[in-house]
Amino acid sequence: MVRGVSVVLAVAVLCGRAWAGGLVGDVANYRSVHEREIVDRLATLTAMRSVAADPRGLGDAAAYLQHELAARGFKTQVWMAKSGSPGLVFGSLRVKGAARTAVFYAHYDGQPVTPSQWVSGPFAPVLRSGTLDSKPTDIDWKTAPLPFDPQWRLFGRAAADDKSSIVAFLSAFDAMQASGHSPSVNIKVVWEGEEEAGSPHIAEILHDHVKDLAADVWFIGDGPVHQSRQQTLYFGARGSVGVEATVYGPVRALHDGHYGNWVPNPAAMAAGLIASLRDDDGHILIPGFGDDVRPLNDAEKKAVAALPPVEDALKQQFGIGRSEGSEGLTASTLRPAMNIRGIRSGQVGAEAANAIPVDATISIDFRLVPNQTPAHVRERVEAFLTAKGWTIVHSDPDAATRTAHARIVKLDWEGAGYPGLRSDMASPAAQATIRAASDAAGKPVAILPTMGGSVPIYLFDQAFHVPIIGLPITNHDNNQHAANENLRLQNLWDGIATYAALMTELRW
Amino acid sequence: MVRGVSVVLAVAVLCGRAWAGGLVGDVANYRSVHEREIVDRLATLTAMRSVAADPRGLGDAAAYLQHELAARGFKTQVWMAKSGSPGLVFGSLRVKGAARTAVFYAHYDGQPVTPSQWVSGPFAPVLRSGTLDSKPTDIDWKTAPLPFDPQWRLFGRAAADDKSSIVAFLSAFDAMQASGHSPSVNIKVVWEGEEEAGSPHIAEILHDHVKDLAADVWFIGDGPVHQSRQQTLYFGARGSVGVEATVYGPVRALHDGHYGNWVPNPAAMAAGLIASLRDDDGHILIPGFGDDVRPLNDAEKKAVAALPPVEDALKQQFGIGRSEGSEGLTASTLRPAMNIRGIRSGQVGAEAANAIPVDATISIDFRLVPNQTPAHVRERVEAFLTAKGWTIVHSDPDAATRTAHARIVKLDWEGAGYPGLRSDMASPAAQATIRAASDAAGKPVAILPTMGGSVPIYLFDQAFHVPIIGLPITNHDNNQHAANENLRLQNLWDGIATYAALMTELRW
Repeated sequence: MVRGVSVVLAVAVLCGRAWAGGLVGDVANYRSVHEREIVDRLATLTAMRSVAADPRGLGDAAAYLQHELAARGFKTQVWMAKSGSPGLVFGSLRVKGAARTAVFYAHYDGQPVTPSQWVSGPFAPVLRSGTLDSKPTDIDWKTAPLPFDPQWRLFGRAAADDKSSIVAFLSAFDAMQASGHSPSVNIKVVWEGEEEAGSPHIAEILHDHVKDLAADVWFIGDGPVHQSRQQTLYFGARGSVGVEATVYGPVRALHDGHYGNWVPNPAAMAAGLIASLRDDDGHILIPGFGDDVRPLNDAEKKAVAALPPVEDALKQQFGIGRSEGSEGLTASTLRPAMNIRGIRSGQVGAEAANAIPVDATISIDFRLVPNQTPAHVRERVEAFLTAKGWTIVHSDPDAATRTAHARIVKLDWEGAGYPGLRSDMASPAAQATIRAASDAAGKPVAILPTMGGSVPIYLFDQAFHVPIIGLPITNHDNNQHAANENLRLQNLWDGIATYAALMTELRW
Repeated sequence: MVRGVSVVLAVAVLCGRAWAGGLVGDVANYRSVHEREIVDRLATLTAMRSVAADPRGLGDAAAYLQHELAARGFKTQVWMAKSGSPGLVFGSLRVKGAARTAVFYAHYDGQPVTPSQWVSGPFAPVLRSGTLDSKPTDIDWKTAPLPFDPQWRLFGRAAADDKSSIVAFLSAFDAMQASGHSPSVNIKVVWEGEEEAGSPHIAEILHDHVKDLAADVWFIGDGPVHQSRQQTLYFGARGSVGVEATVYGPVRALHDGHYGNWVPNPAAMAAGLIASLRDDDGHILIPGFGDDVRPLNDAEKKAVAALPPVEDALKQQFGIGRSEGSEGLTASTLRPAMNIRGIRSGQVGAEAANAIPVDATISIDFRLVPNQTPAHVRERVEAFLTAKGWTIVHSDPDAATRTAHARIVKLDWEGAGYPGLRSDMASPAAQATIRAASDAAGKPVAILPTMGGSVPIYLFDQAFHVPIIGLPITNHDNNQHAANENLRLQNLWDGIATYAALMTELRW
């Protein structure tokens, strides 16, 4: 016990915050003596190959999660779409006397992997003393003495996105129970198995289980915390719609000496197209594109202004000498964005031939903010390109089409896309959440009116019309969606504290 | 004999020109009964793997060519650079009473091949009844009855570029001798073995043999004839200088939802860079870029105006609905050009990730016209980019450099490049050449002040200060430098007639 207390004090100092006592202290105390077990649970879950492309890995993970919930007294089910889908793990715990119900959402699938890009196997989790850049040493968490250094990171696919949220939930629940605290709300759990594949069945499954999912607030355990590493809540996310644009040169590559300056160069045309769509600061130049943008209200502006500055540090981390726009990171990501994901035309480097390429392909994704809709974005883009002299086609043009039009662009829209969402930060549920999370953190949490990234949380909003609040826990530098994804332990510790607070202290 | 005459008449009709008698008739007559042998010679030479990457193939071809020249009474040598190089085959024939000397240049090496892209082996020549698009049948030239259809094409690497010129020379020489005509000039032959590798040793070899190469005119047997299929002479070529430009985003790919609109997108920056350099009609927007451009003189303008229109037909062939500029193909290619050979940034298609790419690479080649120099072009490009706010580096920027500058572009200039050349069309040698070639064709030949493509003929000009005249024979649609290169027989027949005329009728 003496050892336990000293550990708690050490952790409190490491975390840089005052000793809070009560729930916060109890949870920190529990966690500090169970760090090995918690990391082991995250490693076990990370080792499961739950990517949408591998049904077996998904099934194993769903069964494991269902078991974990049942062991904690939850009623559980695994839901699938009628046409078949990865299982959505549902859990429900009624709490005597609780008037409110909170749903905790996360996804247990991860992005696909390219193992050759990983320093260690994506499904063979490794604990390291820091980021890869810091030349870390490997740590054996089975034998390392407690407390663990909170800067250590667990590497593995989905260790951060979102399995850390699931482990934070389970560990917070355990801490709450072990220290004799009771939930203040009925708790429901929705753990999805195909978010990284675009959530193709979530709408159907939500629709099929509207009654089971009745609740007063949804917490979305996805996305990274603010770059300042403060615990974060977000009240929406940008929407998204993607398009691939192809412009055409000659039907076969032509010697650019004999034909350069006469046969149109599709790479140059693509460059002109991009430059006409967006300026150097990312502002979209399409007339009417922003017509539907809902301005920030005063509370939202105040929340953004209160965020700690992170820009200079990020410029160093990212090796960039400027930013697009001058309004700061979060304010920039509250605007609609047009991102060029890639361009391909002809060849570069040793393979470059003195030829006019046959075409140029641009992969674009738009990030939308409320109240923009993908349909309106598509309409505006197409009207703009038409006005600029482009002939728009939606399949490969035949010979007659090619010669009949001066400038042809094929637009492949990637599905319907989805809109952004910005929930009301002033709702009683939102205010109660901010209070509980801030109490757990011992200081005000970072509040983002929307997260820059996109998650289809508009679906929850449309289905249930209750506040949808983002509850991220992973570090921003987690290599999300890339190789060597990792979860920083301090983020998991902070997440456990926040989850525990939202289970036990949420009242309105 | 009766059969021979009827064949000659048939060919004259096929060629669409009047029966000329004398040399022209004698050469056509000789060729018509030797078509099988001529095609066989081109096939034999094409079957030799003379690409710069395969010294054995080059050596075999050089030995074969030396033997062919020696068999025709030429003194021959094979020259190499001191450091080693493919052999340059030199031949010399002194002609009694000839006051002038003409050098016939061609290269016997071909571009590298990607066999998988070929319909038949690049070094296993196949005669076909037409272009691949026309769904041709294969022809066995060993057994097909004479005369051959002049629309037939021999497919193989270098069959057109430039082995057709070499075979035209040899066949013209044979026709001249067989029909009792004598050369009007001393004849020298220069057949290079590494033109397609950029002629890295030609300057040294020319310098080492200045006396052997003394002459009054050089004929460059390279490049395609005008798209109208008229026999063509060109009086220069565009120069060339290449550069690869790389612009930088973040040091690692970043989630474009969380960072899009704040972290600079290098693909968008690259697009802006290209759009700032060149307009939609290929005009280069760099101030001072064209300062050194020497305007066309009246004779040059007249030659361009006299060219048959080919633009509408080419637009159909190439599947393009417009041209860059409205002044016509040849006039367009008399301007400097900036060609985008390729762009690479991020990923497109199924591999596209919602990420801000780390960089964007643009491969560019500039085509220069007299009197532009590569050094001036490089200076203007760099001054312009600097004025536009770019920081230019010539090697990968380190972390401190990246964060210190808003916009960094790395420029990798590909060697020194070389200038263009436009010889004097009014010189006595040029006028005599135009007369002889037009007599052989039975009508005025197409005259290009410069060819759009680049060949380093400025080297010959610098070394010898005599007229340098391009004498192309291959069809423009020969798939030059690409898979399925081919030579149309009528072009070889026309080439034989022209070569014979320049050996026997050249007088000034």
